[in-house]
Amino acid sequence: MTPGTIYGVGLGPGAQDLMSVRADRLIRQAQHVAYFHKAGRQGHARRIIEGMLADGVNEYPMTYPMTTEVPFSDPRYQQALADFYEVQVAQLKALAQAGESVVVLCEGDPFFYGSFMHLYTRLTATVPVEVVPGITGMSAAWTATGQPITWGDDILTVLVGTLPEATLTAQMQASDALVVMKIGQHLDKVRSALAQAGRMEQAWLIEYAAMGNQQVRPLIDAPDKAPYFSIVLVHGQGRRP
Amino acid sequence: MTPGTIYGVGLGPGAQDLMSVRADRLIRQAQHVAYFHKAGRQGHARRIIEGMLADGVNEYPMTYPMTTEVPFSDPRYQQALADFYEVQVAQLKALAQAGESVVVLCEGDPFFYGSFMHLYTRLTATVPVEVVPGITGMSAAWTATGQPITWGDDILTVLVGTLPEATLTAQMQASDALVVMKIGQHLDKVRSALAQAGRMEQAWLIEYAAMGNQQVRPLIDAPDKAPYFSIVLVHGQGRRP
Ligand SMILES: C[S@@+](CC[C@H](N)C(=O)[O-])C[C@H]1O[C@@H](n2cnc3c(N)ncnc32)[C@H](O)[C@@H]1O
Ligand SMILES: C[S@@+](CC[C@H](N)C(=O)[O-])C[C@H]1O[C@@H](n2cnc3c(N)ncnc32)[C@H](O)[C@@H]1O
Repeated sequence: MTPGTIYGVGLGPGAQDLMSVRADRLIRQAQHVAYFHKAGRQGHARRIIEGMLADGVNEYPMTYPMTTEVPFSDPRYQQALADFYEVQVAQLKALAQAGESVVVLCEGDPFFYGSFMHLYTRLTATVPVEVVPGITGMSAAWTATGQPITWGDDILTVLVGTLPEATLTAQMQASDALVVMKIGQHLDKVRSALAQAGRMEQAWLIEYAAMGNQQVRPLIDAPDKAPYFSIVLVHGQGRRP
Repeated sequence: MTPGTIYGVGLGPGAQDLMSVRADRLIRQAQHVAYFHKAGRQGHARRIIEGMLADGVNEYPMTYPMTTEVPFSDPRYQQALADFYEVQVAQLKALAQAGESVVVLCEGDPFFYGSFMHLYTRLTATVPVEVVPGITGMSAAWTATGQPITWGDDILTVLVGTLPEATLTAQMQASDALVVMKIGQHLDKVRSALAQAGRMEQAWLIEYAAMGNQQVRPLIDAPDKAPYFSIVLVHGQGRRP
């Protein structure tokens, strides 16, 4: 029996026509489609591909364990996540070993802070796995500002809002262009770090880049809260003939 | 007369089916297609779209001024480049003002170290310009290594080989994951900086990511020379449940 392939397919930032032609074909031809989501929500990845699935496709929603009881940093939550990944991996492995290929939907680019990576490392030794890169959320974010992110020999640093404030500040001082992902509840800390690094006036907040509800604002004009799909960025100002 | 639109269209890293569905449509429907290339060569962007253009499309090759006589850092070369961009901009502006839309082909993502940015800043005040983001060369490069680039709260720093060695070394020490673009003749310097930063053993060299002649190697096993389409990278090792 030839095993099936598990495809980790990058969907791009949100607009359906920003996925690659390869992703588009794999999704339209898929017999089995898996995706992460939170309980009670369809999930962003599944929403992006609305209308693309053939009739009779088997869907495998992978429901994240609840986070309301234990905080994310708690070792018990990390254990719950590890258990959750094991269950999903067992299911995908069984399908592949029965000769079935599965498309796993991934927001943006799968290997760039993506959840698929946790399945990938557990699957790749035993069944065929292929990854299709995608347009990242940050590419959509800087495109939405109407300004290039890097010129000439600009340095670009990508940070996450979960880092300690001192680390954020030091990195912001040492780079030309900046991208801060995973803003969510960390917006205050990110603002404070930007201010200390002297980068506040050049910062932009982009919510839902390349989605229907996209919002682009200088960070100084933005509200106090930002949704999960938010990116803060500062453009590089490098050499330009 | 309604002006036409100048589209800066990201083609992705090289494989034709890694361009977005939006890019694919714009290119197949285009009446006017412009692209950068070097004298005597077709140019990489034009090669990616081979077979996609409709019959009778007007092509506008934009030939870079020669670099053999004056080095790139010479102010005369910078002036020659500025003059070159002005000429191209005048041509694109004239087309748009005559009601014609033009697709400008861009490797990877247009706003990420792309040449289109130099046209964009000169055009955007006078005629409609739209940018279509693309999958970057670095996404294709880390996908080719079969290892995720960033996990959890990893910091990713993107550098260019043209930076001074001391800057490269300092940045390489201060980041988790690394991407070095524009390697070309700077491979020796990049190696030396990686060695000083203690990152040499974890570095990979990817040539022609997502193209027919793709090569993926640990940097310590790579030859002394690298082509223009080369990326050096070091994967992050962050938190993973
Ligand atoms: C777990 S990471 C996944 C990143 C994704 N793999 C990518 O390539 O963009 C989630 C974070 O990505 C950012 N993000 C991804 N897509 C976005 C979009 N379309 N608009 C705004 N932020 C986005 C947000 O900062 C969010 O918190
Ligand atoms: C002028 S920059 C353009 C980057 C492009 N806009 C992007 O989004 O990837 C050119 C550099 O990008 C890198 N590059 C772009 N595509 C590549 C690919 N497919 N394989 C290897 N390197 C690539 C190389 O380091 C090259 O020197």
